[in-house]
Amino acid sequence: MAIKALDESVGKVVLIKLKGGKVIRGKLQGFDQHMNLALDNSEEIIEDGKTNDLGTIIVRGDNVVIISPPP
Amino acid sequence: MAIKALDESVGKVVLIKLKGGKVIRGKLQGFDQHMNLALDNSEEIIEDGKTNDLGTIIVRGDNVVIISPPP
Amino acid sequence: MAIKALDESVGKVVLIKLKGGKVIRGKLQGFDQHMNLALDNSEEIIEDGKTNDLGTIIVRGDNVVIISPPP
Amino acid sequence: MAIKALDESVGKVVLIKLKGGKVIRGKLQGFDQHMNLALDNSEEIIEDGKTNDLGTIIVRGDNVVIISPPP
Amino acid sequence: MAIKALDESVGKVVLIKLKGGKVIRGKLQGFDQHMNLALDNSEEIIEDGKTNDLGTIIVRGDNVVIISPPP
Amino acid sequence: MAIKALDESVGKVVLIKLKGGKVIRGKLQGFDQHMNLALDNSEEIIEDGKTNDLGTIIVRGDNVVIISPPP
Amino acid sequence: MAIKALDESVGKVVLIKLKGGKVIRGKLQGFDQHMNLALDNSEEIIEDGKTNDLGTIIVRGDNVVIISPPP
Repeated sequence: MAIKALDESVGKVVLIKLKGGKVIRGKLQGFDQHMNLALDNSEEIIEDGKTNDLGTIIVRGDNVVIISPPP
Repeated sequence: MAIKALDESVGKVVLIKLKGGKVIRGKLQGFDQHMNLALDNSEEIIEDGKTNDLGTIIVRGDNVVIISPPP
Repeated sequence: MAIKALDESVGKVVLIKLKGGKVIRGKLQGFDQHMNLALDNSEEIIEDGKTNDLGTIIVRGDNVVIISPPP
Repeated sequence: MAIKALDESVGKVVLIKLKGGKVIRGKLQGFDQHMNLALDNSEEIIEDGKTNDLGTIIVRGDNVVIISPPP
Repeated sequence: MAIKALDESVGKVVLIKLKGGKVIRGKLQGFDQHMNLALDNSEEIIEDGKTNDLGTIIVRGDNVVIISPPP
Repeated sequence: MAIKALDESVGKVVLIKLKGGKVIRGKLQGFDQHMNLALDNSEEIIEDGKTNDLGTIIVRGDNVVIISPPP
Repeated sequence: MAIKALDESVGKVVLIKLKGGKVIRGKLQGFDQHMNLALDNSEEIIEDGKTNDLGTIIVRGDNVVIISPPP
């Protein structure tokens, strides 16, 4: 299952692309079957390389397009 | 589960980002599995730092993008 | 549960913000688990403080953004 | 339940506001739990007070914003 | 139930209004609980009274706004 | 059931209209209850009569507006 | 079932077209019943033939329009 692939990312830093273009990076604390995500030490990545600290956040899963663990 | 991470925020002030860009801050009174939220002492945060008092509100979960407890 | 917070508002005047920006005020007659709402003596609040009488209405829940009992 | 409030409107003329702004008036013949509606003698209300006869129609519930029995 | 009202239209010519404004007319062959529709001898009605033959089609229910049997 | 009408089209060439206007033609290999479709030898039909080969594809059902077997 | 047709693509390179026009190519590692996809060695295909390395990603299924194994 695709979502099971998320299991290996728990505790690691992931990159999240949201509908509308927002990009967020943070440590994946947990998730559920709707792809609701809990992230620690998260930050929004602004277009020109700047970041905006978000801290701990919960992302509602229906906003998610792509999740990727950084290389 | 990501939504379980919301449990720790009950009784605390959280920041809510909604689809369409609206930002709301308030004390999380409760929530359910759809991320429907009940907030006390809430206020909308207008762009130039001003706020607009909303008092007690219920936010329908499908409008939520990100929930974050302030640092 | 967030929706349970609606229980306390039954019989009272609530303010409803809908997707698209429409704002409605009315006495909450009842609701269900989809946040479908039945309102009595309701009125749409036009931007410049004018109101437009709507009487008794049923609002389909998926249009709701925020529900608030007035202070 | 909000939808139960629809029960009292069966056999009466109701006003339906749809997503996108269309407004329809007709006698409520029946409905179901999705707010799918069957209307008799229905007509679309055009902006400048004109109407456009629709006869008997079925409205798919997910298009509905507000249902109101006229005063 | 509203959808049961569709039962009486099976075998008859119905007019379908879709999200986005497309209008289709055809003989209702069958339907299901999602309002997925099977139509025979269907045609799209272009704005200036012209029609565009579509033959037998299946319409996915979530595109439907209004279904009406012609008078 | 409308979807059962799809059964007769398996193994035949169908025309698919998607939300957003894309039009695809291909041999229907199979489908499921969400109208997810598997097509063989499929091609996108570009506006001026040209086509763009797509080969074997899977179309997620929620993008489908209309399915029609060609006459 | 259409989704079963995905079974044959596991371990192979597939092309994914997303809502909004994004195109992604990658090795299909797995999927689930929502068409959530796990891809390895994936890359976004930019319009003028350039690509943008994405590595391992998870795509939330509701963003998917078309999945195709390359010829």
